[in-house]
Formats: sequence, C-alpha cells, structure tokens
Amino acid sequence: MIRFESDYLEGAHPRVLEKLAETNGEQTPGYGEDDYCRQARDRIRELCRAPEAAVHFLTGGTQANRTVIAAALRPHQGVVSADTGHIHVHETGAIENAGHKILALPGRDGKLSAGQVEALCASHWANPSFEHETQPGLVYISNPTELGTIYTRGELEELSAVCRRRGLYLFLDGARLGAALCAEGCDYTFSDLASFCDVFYIGGTKMGALFGEAVVIVNPALQKDFRYYIKQNGGMLAKGRLLGLQYLALLEDGLYLEIGRHEVSLAARLREGLAEKGWEFLVDSPTNQLFPILPDTVLEALGKSFSFNHQQSLPGGMSAVRFCTSWATRPEDVEALLNAIPARG
Amino acid sequence: MIRFESDYLEGAHPRVLEKLAETNGEQTPGYGEDDYCRQARDRIRELCRAPEAAVHFLTGGTQANRTVIAAALRPHQGVVSADTGHIHVHETGAIENAGHKILALPGRDGKLSAGQVEALCASHWANPSFEHETQPGLVYISNPTELGTIYTRGELEELSAVCRRRGLYLFLDGARLGAALCAEGCDYTFSDLASFCDVFYIGGTKMGALFGEAVVIVNPALQKDFRYYIKQNGGMLAKGRLLGLQYLALLEDGLYLEIGRHEVSLAARLREGLAEKGWEFLVDSPTNQLFPILPDTVLEALGKSFSFNHQQSLPGGMSAVRFCTSWATRPEDVEALLNAIPARG
Amino acid sequence: MIRFESDYLEGAHPRVLEKLAETNGEQTPGYGEDDYCRQARDRIRELCRAPEAAVHFLTGGTQANRTVIAAALRPHQGVVSADTGHIHVHETGAIENAGHKILALPGRDGKLSAGQVEALCASHWANPSFEHETQPGLVYISNPTELGTIYTRGELEELSAVCRRRGLYLFLDGARLGAALCAEGCDYTFSDLASFCDVFYIGGTKMGALFGEAVVIVNPALQKDFRYYIKQNGGMLAKGRLLGLQYLALLEDGLYLEIGRHEVSLAARLREGLAEKGWEFLVDSPTNQLFPILPDTVLEALGKSFSFNHQQSLPGGMSAVRFCTSWATRPEDVEALLNAIPARG
Amino acid sequence: MIRFESDYLEGAHPRVLEKLAETNGEQTPGYGEDDYCRQARDRIRELCRAPEAAVHFLTGGTQANRTVIAAALRPHQGVVSADTGHIHVHETGAIENAGHKILALPGRDGKLSAGQVEALCASHWANPSFEHETQPGLVYISNPTELGTIYTRGELEELSAVCRRRGLYLFLDGARLGAALCAEGCDYTFSDLASFCDVFYIGGTKMGALFGEAVVIVNPALQKDFRYYIKQNGGMLAKGRLLGLQYLALLEDGLYLEIGRHEVSLAARLREGLAEKGWEFLVDSPTNQLFPILPDTVLEALGKSFSFNHQQSLPGGMSAVRFCTSWATRPEDVEALLNAIPARG
Repeated sequence: MIRFESDYLEGAHPRVLEKLAETNGEQTPGYGEDDYCRQARDRIRELCRAPEAAVHFLTGGTQANRTVIAAALRPHQGVVSADTGHIHVHETGAIENAGHKILALPGRDGKLSAGQVEALCASHWANPSFEHETQPGLVYISNPTELGTIYTRGELEELSAVCRRRGLYLFLDGARLGAALCAEGCDYTFSDLASFCDVFYIGGTKMGALFGEAVVIVNPALQKDFRYYIKQNGGMLAKGRLLGLQYLALLEDGLYLEIGRHEVSLAARLREGLAEKGWEFLVDSPTNQLFPILPDTVLEALGKSFSFNHQQSLPGGMSAVRFCTSWATRPEDVEALLNAIPARG
Repeated sequence: MIRFESDYLEGAHPRVLEKLAETNGEQTPGYGEDDYCRQARDRIRELCRAPEAAVHFLTGGTQANRTVIAAALRPHQGVVSADTGHIHVHETGAIENAGHKILALPGRDGKLSAGQVEALCASHWANPSFEHETQPGLVYISNPTELGTIYTRGELEELSAVCRRRGLYLFLDGARLGAALCAEGCDYTFSDLASFCDVFYIGGTKMGALFGEAVVIVNPALQKDFRYYIKQNGGMLAKGRLLGLQYLALLEDGLYLEIGRHEVSLAARLREGLAEKGWEFLVDSPTNQLFPILPDTVLEALGKSFSFNHQQSLPGGMSAVRFCTSWATRPEDVEALLNAIPARG
Repeated sequence: MIRFESDYLEGAHPRVLEKLAETNGEQTPGYGEDDYCRQARDRIRELCRAPEAAVHFLTGGTQANRTVIAAALRPHQGVVSADTGHIHVHETGAIENAGHKILALPGRDGKLSAGQVEALCASHWANPSFEHETQPGLVYISNPTELGTIYTRGELEELSAVCRRRGLYLFLDGARLGAALCAEGCDYTFSDLASFCDVFYIGGTKMGALFGEAVVIVNPALQKDFRYYIKQNGGMLAKGRLLGLQYLALLEDGLYLEIGRHEVSLAARLREGLAEKGWEFLVDSPTNQLFPILPDTVLEALGKSFSFNHQQSLPGGMSAVRFCTSWATRPEDVEALLNAIPARG
Repeated sequence: MIRFESDYLEGAHPRVLEKLAETNGEQTPGYGEDDYCRQARDRIRELCRAPEAAVHFLTGGTQANRTVIAAALRPHQGVVSADTGHIHVHETGAIENAGHKILALPGRDGKLSAGQVEALCASHWANPSFEHETQPGLVYISNPTELGTIYTRGELEELSAVCRRRGLYLFLDGARLGAALCAEGCDYTFSDLASFCDVFYIGGTKMGALFGEAVVIVNPALQKDFRYYIKQNGGMLAKGRLLGLQYLALLEDGLYLEIGRHEVSLAARLREGLAEKGWEFLVDSPTNQLFPILPDTVLEALGKSFSFNHQQSLPGGMSAVRFCTSWATRPEDVEALLNAIPARG
C-alpha cells in the first residue's frame, strides 16, 4: 500500500529528527522559554522581515486556529470564512465552542474575495438593528486553500485593504504554506505575508516536522497576553523546545522551501501524468493536493494498492478524490500511481 | 547549571527516541488510527485489566484535563477539586473557559477527602434553591498531588464510594502517576486505579516521553463520542502514531515503572540528605517533588549553580522551594546539590 | 404614525394587565414557585394533552432558544436550522456563544424539510472522519417561520420521524405560535405539536403578553435539571409569578387563540387589499407577517405615516417589506394603510 | 402567612403599575429604542451627574452580572469577588459559563478590601509563570452586600484607586442599591458611585419594580457594542419600553429613595425590636436584610405564620436566618413578627 491521502502520514524529515536526537540530553527551561525557541523566533522574524512580530509555537492547526481566534475576537464578533474553510467544516465546531459564529461565504475554488468581505460588512452596518447580528471581526483564509489553490498577491493585497478599512483582522492559515510559496506563479514570500496579514502561521506538521505551527503575530494589538491563551487552550507544550528545535532544523539552509518544492514538483508530475491520460480535475490546483475526477470502478481497483481521500461524488459513476504528496513522497511512488491509472477511454 | 525545577527539562528517554527514529519513514494513517496506537491501547488495557476501557492519547496535561471535563459535565455542573489542584491554580482558567465552575475545597497536603465531597453534596442537595448553585458533577484529584503526596488505597476507595453514591465522576490526574506507583508505601497499581476511577490518565510528559498523556476511560458513559471532544479542543495530533509509539516504548519491559523508581529513589536520597543536614519540609512527600524549607540566603547562593522553583515565602527569612527529579537526573547531580547545601546551623 | 413593523410595539392585552393589577399586592414565593405559575403550567399541560410535560416560563425568544439548546446539546453537537432561522441570523450568535455550531441548510420559504435533515445526517455518519465535523444533535424550526409561512401537519410528522430515527431532538420556536394555529389551512393544534416535538414554546411576547414564552418540554430526557439552565442563562425571573399570571390570562376563555385569529384576519384583509391593487408578495404567507413587493418611491412616501421593516431590495427599484399585525391592530389601521398604497400602474 | 424571606415577593409599587397601564395602548419602537427609555436614560445620567455615561436596562441581576462581565473581560481574565459574592454562590456558575474564573477572596462581612485586591494583583504579576494563572481583570462588589452590610465612602475610594492603578474594572452590583443609599451612615450617593465605578447598576427588581436593573456604564472603554452583548445573552426585551417606563416611575419625585427609606426604616424597627428582646445578629446590617440568630425551636414555631430564609446553622441549636423588608412591607407586619418572637430567656 502506497499512501497518498494526506501529507502527515510519515514521521519527520531526517534533519528534524537529528536535531531532536542531538539535543535530547540537554536541560532547558520549559514552556518555550529556552534558547532554541528564542533562536527559532528570531530566525522567523528575519525571514518575515518583521522584527517586531511575536512568534509562538503551537502543536497543531486546529489548536492554532482556535487560539488565535479566541485571542482576537470579542464574544459578539464572528469569523468571515469561505464555506470550504477548515475551521468551518473540519474542526468539530472548535471556533463555535470558543463562542464565535463563523460567517460562511461561498468560496470560489476555496477562496474568499475582498468584494465578498466588503459586501458582508456593508450589509451588517447598513442594518438598523445590527446588534441583532454577529459583528464581523476577523477574516480567515487558508493558503493554500483546502482545495489546493493559492491566492495571488493582488488578491491578498485587496483582502488586506478591505480588512484595514473595515477594522477586521486578517488571519492566514498556512498549514501548508511552503506548498503555496513554492507553487508555480506564486508572486510573494514570507515577508509579503507579514505585510498583508495581522497574523498567520507557517505550518510545520504538513511540511516535514513531527508537529508544530509557528504563529506569527504582526499586529501589536494581537500580541498582548497571547501566552495566556495558549495555556488556556491546552497548547502550552511542557518540553517547548521541541518546537523551537524543529523550526530551527526546517529553516536551516532553506529546508522548509526545499520540502515545499519537493511536494509541489511531485504533485506537478502527477497532474501532468493524469492530464496526459485525459483525466480532468475538480479544481485547478498548483500545490501538493490534487483533485482528479476518476471513474468509481477505477478508484475501487486503485484502492487496493494506494490510499487517497474521497472528496465528492459526481454524476456518471465518477468521483473527485484527493491525492497529496509530502516531504517523503518518492518519484517512484508517483510513477507507480500513474501506472496504475488507465488512460481515459 | 544543574536544573531541578521540574521533570520536563530534558528530552525523552533514549528508548522512546529510538522507537520514533526506527519507524520514522513508515507510512501510517493519521489521527491515532494506526496500528502502533492500537497496540499501545491494548497494552494499556491489559496493564489496567480493563478490557473494555477506552484509551486516548493527548499531548499534555492541561489539554487532557480540559477535554475530559468538557466531555464529562453538563453546563450547570462543576468540578470538585482541592484548592491546590492544578486545574484550579495553574491552567489559566481552562476549565472555566470550557464553561465549568471549580468548587474548590481546602486540600490537606494537596488531597481531598471523601468526607469533604460528601459534605459538599449534602449541602447542595439540602439547599431548597439548589438550582441557584453549581451542581457538583465530577471530583478531580491529582496523584501524586501538586505537593508530591499520594493517596492511600483506602482514601481512593472511599472517594470512589462517595462518588458512586452521589452520582459524580471520579477523575484522577496522573501526570506523574509513575512516581506515585513507585513511592514507598503505595499499596495499589494501575488495575486498582481502573477499578476506583471513572477516568484517569497515565502521564507521559513527566515520565520520560517527549510529550503525551494516556487517558483511560473506564466508565462506558464517558466513552461515547470522545474523539469529537479531542478534535474540538485542539488535541487531535495529525501524526498520531507519535503518541502510540512513545507509549509502546514506555510500557516495554517495564520502562515506565523503572523511570518512576529512578525518580523516586533519587528524590529519596535527596530527602535523606537534607534531613541529615537538619532541614525540614513544607510537606512530607514520598515522590519526586520535594519541598524543603531553606534560608533565603542559602537559596540565593544555591541559585547560581542550581535551578529550582520558589513555592512559598515563610517567616524568618525562610522559603519553601521545590526540587524535582526526572528520568534523566543522575545520582551525581543529587550529590552535587546536597554538597552545595550547608547543614542547619 | 401608525406602526406595522412588528407585533411587539404595544403593551399587553388589557386582560393580561388586569390580572397583574388585581394580584399586585399579594405575597408569593419567587422564581416561579408560586401557585399562579403552577396553575398556568397545569393549564398548558391540559391544553397540550401532555400531562407529563415540564413547563417553564422565560422572558423572551432569544433566551428561550439559547437555554433550550444549551440544555439539550453536548459541546460537539450542533443545531440544524434553515438559513433564515432566527437563531442563525437575528440573535447575535447567542447559540455559538453557548458553544454550538448552527448547521444551516437552505430554507424553502423559511422551512426545513425532513429530506434535508436526513441527507445531512446521512452525510455526517458516512464520513469516515465524522469526528472532525460537528455532530447534528437538534433540529430547530420556527412556526410560523421568519417568512410568515407555516408547516403542514404532514411536514411536521415527517420531521418528527426523521429526528426520532436519527436521534436528534426536534425543537419548535413558537414565538408567534398563535398565528400559526389560526392560519387558514392549519391542520393541527397544541396537542399535536406536543406529539411531534421534543420541546417547543408557546410564545407570549408577540401574542398579547408584556413578555413571556412558555417552554413545553415533552421529552423526559430534556426535563432534568432545566431550572439550573434557566438560572445560569440569566432567565430566572425573581417575581416569577408575573409569567404565570400572564399565561393564565392568555389561556382563559380562549384569549390566546382569539388574539391569533385577530392578528391573522387583519393580515388577511391587508393581503387581499394589496392583491386587489395588483401587488405581489415575496412569499405567500397565511399568518400575521406579510412581505409585499412595492416600488421604493411608494415606500418612501408611505414611510411618512406608517412604519414597517425593509426585508430585501429587489431589481427595478422595488423592495420587499414586512407588515405585521398585532393583538392591538385595529381594522381602521389596516384600511388606512391600504388607502395610502396606490394600485399598481 | 406573612412573608419576609426576600424583597421580591410582591408585585410593583402602584405608581410603577400605573405608568405601565396608562401607556399600555401606545405604539413605540421595540428593544429599548423608544422615547420612554431615552427619557429614563437621561434622568439616570442627571442623577449620576454622568452626562457621558451609557445606560442600559436589563431584566434581572444574574443577567446584568453575566452581561457586564462578558462585555468587560477577555477570556484569560477573571473576576475578583468576595467568597460570599452573589456571582460566586447563587448564580449557577453563570460567570464561568461565560468563560471566566472567579478569583474568590474571603469577604469580611461580605466586603472586599483594597488591600486584598492589591495583594492578589501583586502576587499574580510577581509569579514568573503568570500566564499559567487567570489574570485578574475586574473587581465585583455588591452594595449592599449579600450580608446586608454597606461599603463606606473611604472603602470605595480605595477600591477604586487600586483598580485604576492595577488596570482592573470596578463593577458594583446594586441590586438593592436604594437600601444602601438610605442606610444610616451612608456617606455617598449616585453621583459618587459614578465617580468610583467603571460600571454599576441601580437595581429595580428589589426596589419596587416588576423587574429591571439599570446598568450605568461610566467608563467609555466598556460602552462600545454593549447592545450586542445584551442581545447575545438573551436580555434584549422586545417591549423594551416596559423598563424605561418603570424607571421613569421610580425616579419621579424621589420614589426610588422613598422606597429605600421605607425598607430600611422598617428593618431598623425590626432590628431594634429583636435587640431589645436580647437576640444577637450574625452580622451588623444597616439595610433591609437582617440576620438574627434564634433558637431552632423558636424558628420552627415562627415558620407556621411567617416565612424567612435559613442562612446558617450554628452550635447550640441556634440558626441565623434572614428577614427582608420590601416596598410593600407594612409596619403592622413587622410588629406582628416581633410579637411572635419571644424575648431571650
């Protein structure tokens, strides 16, 4: 069985594991107050050209989303999100459990537009009884999105502008950020994101770490007391250096983007191979998640040797499925998968 | 600097790290649905002689406490705890953030008694307006307590009996459970705890793991839908096998209790050494946390070469401090510490 | 200015006020434990032919919705609602503030169908990772809906059946229940609702009371500890008898349905008058809320002498607006309104 | 049976009821946006000499406490309260349900001191791991307290000063404020409270209204978006004018303080009468709640003709009980009660 259903099926990149092993016997203070975490924070601030940013390490995406949003919003404020947003459909209502409504808008290939955010705000404030509605307080976007697409620089600039004009925070979920930054056509980098967003995270779990998300808080209004929120939401790792160490490994000699390029290039090979065989895609994704549409009969046979996720049933006995590549995917795995899929009849 | 302020200052026991390294390249399903987690769950059920228990792995103590309590209680119910309980004083109000009041009772050396629980319940139900008060729903105890003491078998049996009679759940926080089970005079083991408690956890973070707490849910009423709560509270680790693997290592060839014995025996040596020098203790602790009372002048000098926690200022220029031993503490570290502390004048 | 924007613009029906005045000097126990509340509860149980039902009086609709849902659901469970549902769009996220996601489905004229509920449940339980999604736990419907439409007996029976099959509670918001029961074509009464629903309320605020909603809890599983939830959510009225007294007045000699017939018949006259003049409606409503589509120029002029709510802007310089009738609306008010609206050109 | 167990056992003062009756047929906008509410707000601002204060009307004390605290605090912040505070012991955990820990300190006759607040803050900020504790964010005091005592001007000034120095809000629960202001020795009035507190309320329910609490928000930082919180917490009364009208009646010709004087003077007569008979009190209360200590045998006999609350069992077959006077208590009721209590043997 070769597994393609996601990008968290293997352990960590060997250089991450080495770093943990070589420091294992050392004694350091707990809770992220050690020198490794300090170095990793500094390294991230440099990378983002955001010397005043606060950087915190959390262990997973749902935890990061929940903690950031709990810290950012007042009880009567809600989160604007695409209806495909991870927080809206795949986190067991964690945001609502923290007390906040998600104001879901129809995504376009998983993306929100500045125009949608503007229209929602205009509608809220035009209502003479606006206090009977949830007040929009923060815009959540994921990049890459849950459909593998990425925002353009122009789209991010426009979202950033409408958020500032309307007094909303802009929060970017970068669980797979490396894949976005290495995608063909991506015209921005870490430091641009720091200028567009109030807060975003540089995902580790899906980019070669054992676990970890580095939350970068650019807006000073969001920095205050953030460690209280981490602790309250159960995300304060006792042996906190494990997170700093992993990010040090990932950011050394460009490993993070090297992993991104690896994921994206293997996905590109898979996309081309599928297209050559005549298959179409649910959405045109330039990152490490692909959503080809294949006959259910083909999928059933394929499932004996390969794992993947079912995304959506379609008419005519077809389904869209998801294949992911990871730091550990080998070119021969992709070729084996392609060989197992017949050309369209 | 030799550090004694807690038991999470080093990495993992080498056998834990080896297990992670040797399986690193394998592909497994995510979110704890892999074979390693299954094996670790089975191993824990055997150890507890609780074949019907549900076992879940979480990454830290606050997360475990919050998730278990959120799953166990209705909104109008509260948690009975000693006023020294970790959930009451060191978790940034995580339980209240999840909506539940903590009904704090004065602990005796960190422990609650069955009589206190009975009196609280009797008082609640005798109030003709009981619905104006928080209804007691669960008793939280830690073992060892935050003061290093342990419950006796008789005390646990009585707490268990009053909880069953009054319809409360009994939840034992076992963040340092190995130290309790290896303490001199401990007259119970894993399987006894499974018979006393509705739910408890076998701590990993402070017992040689990188991180991890194994929650054992004995009461079937608490088992339903527990994975939803883990996800909602941000505790569902994507690469979930990391937890199963660590517990497999800890439970192989009795490593878990071996670590407990190591921690406790070094603490015992430290306790004897301090007593021989004439120093007294805030509380009589048989586990790996010691609370000696020392002159502030001695502590100031000591702080240049050793780290420890301040626990409480006392009259006469004295303070109680906390020293912890861990899986990694070496006998020579303890001797060095003892050598640095003068005999009482 | 004659006001038509809602049905809570006047005080109480005179017979309600008389009952309060004539008992004003009496002493009774507080918090709804007086004889008037007991009598009103008994009267409602008779009316519903539900001798085992629990009846509680709350002061408003949002409070009733929030309290019932908080009492009914576990943290990982959500509420299925039409996207026009009051809880989804007009209660400032009160349900999310209580921790629960609303699973909004597209309403048809404000109504949910049994088929939609079944499809949602089927999709949830078919997802192999269902614990990453909110679990559907309760179906919320309003009757009349926010668009003035009413459910048929058959629709309610089907919703009830799917809820029971799938293990969801069925909760009916009856803020304007009298208008539904008196609408032309309504083929059920109080006791039928008690057989279809797990919990529902008989609205008072919009049916001639100063304030008040009578929550009828038919399902015994929801009855336990309900008074705790009322208190915790701030809805336990100290002078609780005020609620019992008002319901006694409303239920005496059929006043409640008399008010319903009054509201509905005046709305019917208004609907006919508007139709005769050639105007169309956003939705075909048989109750006391009407949504005619009128030119903005007409509305602007009309607004000088009559108040109403803007519902929706439409193409061609038209808007849908809402007119409500109440217990206090006079026939001459309706005629005046009709006279002020020109016939369609 | 003559009832003395609380001050909410009768309806409203006749002048309140008259005001409701005489305006009953009028049409006004809903949700507190009518002219009566505007007038009542203005009247309260004048009374408090706080022209910039925001004034909101809620229906009860628990609702007011919950809503104000939810609006004032961030999730990691808690409420400092005396351990006898209403929010801590008699509101079913409403504050915790809204997510906030109550940091309870031992009250002295129901009161907190500035020194206690200062010590708590000092301790929090001196802890090097303060983010593991709840951050104090607001001080809650009730005046009169739950034991009938009142703060002095000096005590309030000191509390105010420490709150400002430490960055905490000061919130005064004035459910029985009229009784405090009319108590012998009270050396401040409404406008002084407005200068000491960030927010406080002028209770109506226990001062002659059917229901209602007027929340006065002096601190501009707390004023923003407050109506959202009212709605979200289920406290936005549809026929909102009912609250404005009641306060207009209560504040006309000094009725509010007249009721206060009535309550306090009858309680004073009762206190003197009991003292003359040789009975002692649990606490020395100058307001309308008295806590005499009487033999259980006397209380048993007394309970056949008079109602009162049990407060505390004491040694020697004695109990402290609570007697309350209200706007409706008659001098002859007090005499009858005194006559029914024997002199101490």
